[in-house]
Amino acid sequence: MNTFGQLFRVTTFGESHGAAIGAVIDGCPAGLKIDLALIAKEMARRRPGQSTITTSREETDEVEIIAGVYQNRTLGSPIALIIRNKDQRPADYEWLKNSYRPSHADFTYEKKYGIRDYRGGGRASARTTAAVVAAGAIAQQYLAQFKVISAAFVSQLGKSKWDLPSELKLVNAPNELKKLIAKREKSLVRCPDNIATKAMTAYLTELQAEGNTCGGKITTIINGMPIGIGEPIFGKLSAQLSAAMLSINAVHGFEFGSGFDAVSMTGKTHNDAFVIKNKQVQTATNNSGGILGGISNGMPIYFNVAFKPIATIKTEQLTVNSKNKPYNQKASGRHDPCAVPRAVPIVEAMTNLVLVDLMLQNKTARI
Amino acid sequence: MNTFGQLFRVTTFGESHGAAIGAVIDGCPAGLKIDLALIAKEMARRRPGQSTITTSREETDEVEIIAGVYQNRTLGSPIALIIRNKDQRPADYEWLKNSYRPSHADFTYEKKYGIRDYRGGGRASARTTAAVVAAGAIAQQYLAQFKVISAAFVSQLGKSKWDLPSELKLVNAPNELKKLIAKREKSLVRCPDNIATKAMTAYLTELQAEGNTCGGKITTIINGMPIGIGEPIFGKLSAQLSAAMLSINAVHGFEFGSGFDAVSMTGKTHNDAFVIKNKQVQTATNNSGGILGGISNGMPIYFNVAFKPIATIKTEQLTVNSKNKPYNQKASGRHDPCAVPRAVPIVEAMTNLVLVDLMLQNKTARI
Amino acid sequence: MNTFGQLFRVTTFGESHGAAIGAVIDGCPAGLKIDLALIAKEMARRRPGQSTITTSREETDEVEIIAGVYQNRTLGSPIALIIRNKDQRPADYEWLKNSYRPSHADFTYEKKYGIRDYRGGGRASARTTAAVVAAGAIAQQYLAQFKVISAAFVSQLGKSKWDLPSELKLVNAPNELKKLIAKREKSLVRCPDNIATKAMTAYLTELQAEGNTCGGKITTIINGMPIGIGEPIFGKLSAQLSAAMLSINAVHGFEFGSGFDAVSMTGKTHNDAFVIKNKQVQTATNNSGGILGGISNGMPIYFNVAFKPIATIKTEQLTVNSKNKPYNQKASGRHDPCAVPRAVPIVEAMTNLVLVDLMLQNKTARI
Amino acid sequence: MNTFGQLFRVTTFGESHGAAIGAVIDGCPAGLKIDLALIAKEMARRRPGQSTITTSREETDEVEIIAGVYQNRTLGSPIALIIRNKDQRPADYEWLKNSYRPSHADFTYEKKYGIRDYRGGGRASARTTAAVVAAGAIAQQYLAQFKVISAAFVSQLGKSKWDLPSELKLVNAPNELKKLIAKREKSLVRCPDNIATKAMTAYLTELQAEGNTCGGKITTIINGMPIGIGEPIFGKLSAQLSAAMLSINAVHGFEFGSGFDAVSMTGKTHNDAFVIKNKQVQTATNNSGGILGGISNGMPIYFNVAFKPIATIKTEQLTVNSKNKPYNQKASGRHDPCAVPRAVPIVEAMTNLVLVDLMLQNKTARI
Repeated sequence: MNTFGQLFRVTTFGESHGAAIGAVIDGCPAGLKIDLALIAKEMARRRPGQSTITTSREETDEVEIIAGVYQNRTLGSPIALIIRNKDQRPADYEWLKNSYRPSHADFTYEKKYGIRDYRGGGRASARTTAAVVAAGAIAQQYLAQFKVISAAFVSQLGKSKWDLPSELKLVNAPNELKKLIAKREKSLVRCPDNIATKAMTAYLTELQAEGNTCGGKITTIINGMPIGIGEPIFGKLSAQLSAAMLSINAVHGFEFGSGFDAVSMTGKTHNDAFVIKNKQVQTATNNSGGILGGISNGMPIYFNVAFKPIATIKTEQLTVNSKNKPYNQKASGRHDPCAVPRAVPIVEAMTNLVLVDLMLQNKTARI
Repeated sequence: MNTFGQLFRVTTFGESHGAAIGAVIDGCPAGLKIDLALIAKEMARRRPGQSTITTSREETDEVEIIAGVYQNRTLGSPIALIIRNKDQRPADYEWLKNSYRPSHADFTYEKKYGIRDYRGGGRASARTTAAVVAAGAIAQQYLAQFKVISAAFVSQLGKSKWDLPSELKLVNAPNELKKLIAKREKSLVRCPDNIATKAMTAYLTELQAEGNTCGGKITTIINGMPIGIGEPIFGKLSAQLSAAMLSINAVHGFEFGSGFDAVSMTGKTHNDAFVIKNKQVQTATNNSGGILGGISNGMPIYFNVAFKPIATIKTEQLTVNSKNKPYNQKASGRHDPCAVPRAVPIVEAMTNLVLVDLMLQNKTARI
Repeated sequence: MNTFGQLFRVTTFGESHGAAIGAVIDGCPAGLKIDLALIAKEMARRRPGQSTITTSREETDEVEIIAGVYQNRTLGSPIALIIRNKDQRPADYEWLKNSYRPSHADFTYEKKYGIRDYRGGGRASARTTAAVVAAGAIAQQYLAQFKVISAAFVSQLGKSKWDLPSELKLVNAPNELKKLIAKREKSLVRCPDNIATKAMTAYLTELQAEGNTCGGKITTIINGMPIGIGEPIFGKLSAQLSAAMLSINAVHGFEFGSGFDAVSMTGKTHNDAFVIKNKQVQTATNNSGGILGGISNGMPIYFNVAFKPIATIKTEQLTVNSKNKPYNQKASGRHDPCAVPRAVPIVEAMTNLVLVDLMLQNKTARI
Repeated sequence: MNTFGQLFRVTTFGESHGAAIGAVIDGCPAGLKIDLALIAKEMARRRPGQSTITTSREETDEVEIIAGVYQNRTLGSPIALIIRNKDQRPADYEWLKNSYRPSHADFTYEKKYGIRDYRGGGRASARTTAAVVAAGAIAQQYLAQFKVISAAFVSQLGKSKWDLPSELKLVNAPNELKKLIAKREKSLVRCPDNIATKAMTAYLTELQAEGNTCGGKITTIINGMPIGIGEPIFGKLSAQLSAAMLSINAVHGFEFGSGFDAVSMTGKTHNDAFVIKNKQVQTATNNSGGILGGISNGMPIYFNVAFKPIATIKTEQLTVNSKNKPYNQKASGRHDPCAVPRAVPIVEAMTNLVLVDLMLQNKTARI
């Protein structure tokens, strides 16, 4: 299944070192104005090589839209976009042909398919998320019509943490959010706090020197979500967000609203009283994270995503080869101490795909 | 979307106080022997009223299979099952007609659909998970052929915790797991540890007296999973499990393997070295939770699910009615201090649905 | 695949002599008023035993809606309906256990699934279309809001034919159509012409005496279809209608508009000139059958469906049993000379399912 | 819906005069050897400009596979292929910007989407079937493993007809079929009969001189189909074939086996007796066209498809423009008297897509 969504269906394709990666978006409503500069900007945000800390691969990631858009407007037909893989270095990966890197997907792909494009992880590479980011940038343009904004922030790297300001959980405050986004864009690690940014950067510098990597956490907030979005039972907004996040490479956990903290709370402290504010029904607290019964209630939506450390480390590791022989493997090639800052636009993209899909589904909720 | 699964498609239907709830399972392979007693047993496990602590509603939950099974074998045609709602007390819910209970789905359903079956939460009620449990019991019988066992345990209520024994994360040990299951079945709160059970029970008794409720955590282990199950990218085993879990009422979080702990780990400690044990490729540690790149690697799979406290509490709460007037609401009717023990068979059922669906999908992975 | 439709998804279930047959309709918009009497009326139209000619099985076909409707309005949740099989005579079918009736599905079901409910054809029986008719009656109520009417007529039995009046192909004329429907309802064979009805009836009487059966043709017209319904490429209105018709038991062909006559026509005679009539864009002729590029153009839609003769005949036939031994089979049990008149409400039901599904899909065509 | 198939899912994209057209095939089993020359050969068969009669547009139609294939084997990941539109002449289509050609999809696309790529019909152009042919060539390679061959022939143009030899309907005779295919490949009009070819060619030459066009009929035979392929009820092999055929531009009808002839047949003449031939269960006649209850019975499958005449004719026609003003339109640009010979590889491609999809689905029919 390489398709995400029911009505706004995004199918991605491509291997890390094949000719190209890309996506087909089927179901995008006709007449949407497409801003190519915005797509390019999002692609640049995901691209490795943005700082001395977070990357080494050079990818220019030019998106070519080859179908579905005419004179900058969507036609209602499938939007197809491709991104050529320019920085191909297949020779770098010959050592991978018959061996499995620990905590990578080499082993499971080989066993599942009996064949594997071992070059840079092939289909399992995070490279393929570039197509997701491009599709997400189109979804973002759909959401902009309704003033819905999703924004993700690095909220933890190692032991350094940052908390989403609680007022943003309680009020749809687009201007405050935009200020936070502006701060984030100045941070090498995509955390909107200066002090945390410094600590995180120092930590990554240290890990890079050691050839080590770290996990991290991303916190996302959705501002301006209309009421009623999300399909009950198996199409819950929370379930779709969760599936979207767990589709991202290296993600090991998802929680929304009170999340895992709810485990040790009681109903009396957890319940969100309904109140009237500005003549609208709102809730006094927002442990529900803006979602009740799987459906948006109009409050800000927020959730956390946990990432494991990148599996490629610069140290000798015990592993086996395709003949089941154990050996000590030393990874060659690129090393990136942390993928989490780069995952920020990916998290936003997947979030946007979920939101557009459920907003379109909601168009048929009533006669 | 009331259907779960791509090939083993389970569609549930029914409102809490309508005539019946039920499910249609389309795509179950023909020739599977159906043990009706096992279905009845699973239904009994989910049913409220099993102890003084965990329930008050009386539901007998008799499953009638009306299609798709002939002489106790599946025909390959859709399996339809219905469960009549016998304990209907619509009059109990008149007070709900024009009001929204805090942290329930009354408000969002009303806003989404413009109409609502207010009786006991209607479609949003946990009542509807009975159909899931019945479907899951059929999936369980499919899995039994391959000796795949999924088992869920209450691992936290309030501050009382229990940890899954680490050896069960490292070795597929069906006999050890069965012993743990046997212990769990003797626990009122479905925790396999005596001491934790006592503490949890005491906590629930206290909450019941206060008219309060609590959240909790369930830990699930899947034993005997073959290698290669799970579809890459948007059909990852981890993503499907996550979507399945977040589809369950009150679930606020999901993590597998190292989960949120991965956030503060490094690659050097997190990576699972491949080793040869019993002539098979295994991993020395299992932070990956048995899943690499979204595909099972043959190791035990384990994950945690966070539940928020039940929203129905016996205390006056601030809310609004359907005319946007604020008022103090005192819930009448049943009170259950904790839904988590009862959610154990639901978690297992949803897990089983995911596993069968992905095992069937895997049948077409290679030529 | 027992589900029809993308957004208005109808899943049917049930075997001819199992406990019940039924359907789940997922995706019906909330707030639709349901007229149970209309459903009962449609069920009665499909039911065998309506005349001395067209039937022998007695089925009362009471539809029980067990979910998704509250106080006669749809809730937006799945509508589940069941029809108990009351006239079960399994003993009548023991002779079928190990043999394959010519031109029936006994052989192919056995080979596909390795197991077969041989009682009356099991899942392959036309009995299961009762669930389709019930679902179609709900779709009909959706269409009624938009004044869309679909009506099917028997247009050929043996050599007796009837032609749809050409003015009905050229103008949306609901009143004229209703008159035709009224005439049809007085015809034993569901042909609106008295003379043709007499000839057809005589033919069926003759076939019944001989233990023989005949095929036939049904012509359907859709009146009042809005412009723009139908998805391009693989969701064409014409393709969906075709798939719907070929899903009906015994159907061997489908054609719309000029149909197979188009084969020997030229562009100059076939093209439909656009003209302005009543201030609207219409076409001067309607060889396109109201569909251009798979999308409705606002003209009446019409199509023909070919049915093969019922395979159950009262004569000895050469066949083989499940041990591949040839023998002469004499069918016992019921005999019906022609299923085509009874198929009229089934054709209408499937048509209605297509129309509602595509009308819902069209809600997301534009921003 | 631009996706065809449940498991072998082909999504096409592209407009006639956009940058490229293409397809993504998701669900193709891993390990299939891909013969690029075969794909090129099929593309050449579909391409216009192959004779003085059947074309005028020059398209080279080079297929570039950009994902899913590594070292000529499928990886199990999505296969993406693109075909650049080289012969773009947008200026040729300015006159189409504000007008609707009779019997084309200009009008319905405009009304549905509010926007239209008017260049050469945009998404509605038969140009987009090139992507289908490329995908079908991959499906063909899957079928070749099982010795399943589908072959289509022009069986009628104007009044000239050709009949599929009846022995090919009764016996799976691959060698005989291959001879017929070889004859067809020598025919300008893709009819395997010399005399018919001459008459058809003369007819097309005449139409071309007149600026006129004609419809036609294609007959397809599937040889070597295993028993048990096709899903009952809404996934019948016959229904899927029908939907596939009606998805092709200009198709107005589909019939399989006895087809519309069944209308005037009786059960006694129509029923296919089961017999044992070569130790296998076969049928003495094959009015069922190799399909019983929607499932293949092992006999040859055959069906007919009716095409309307190409709507682009070289004569003045009455039409309206986008301001609802009537005017006389004279089409400029290319003229092709008949699309039916060129549709032969498209019919085969769509047939192959159906067969592979249903063969994959069948892998999960039994435990």
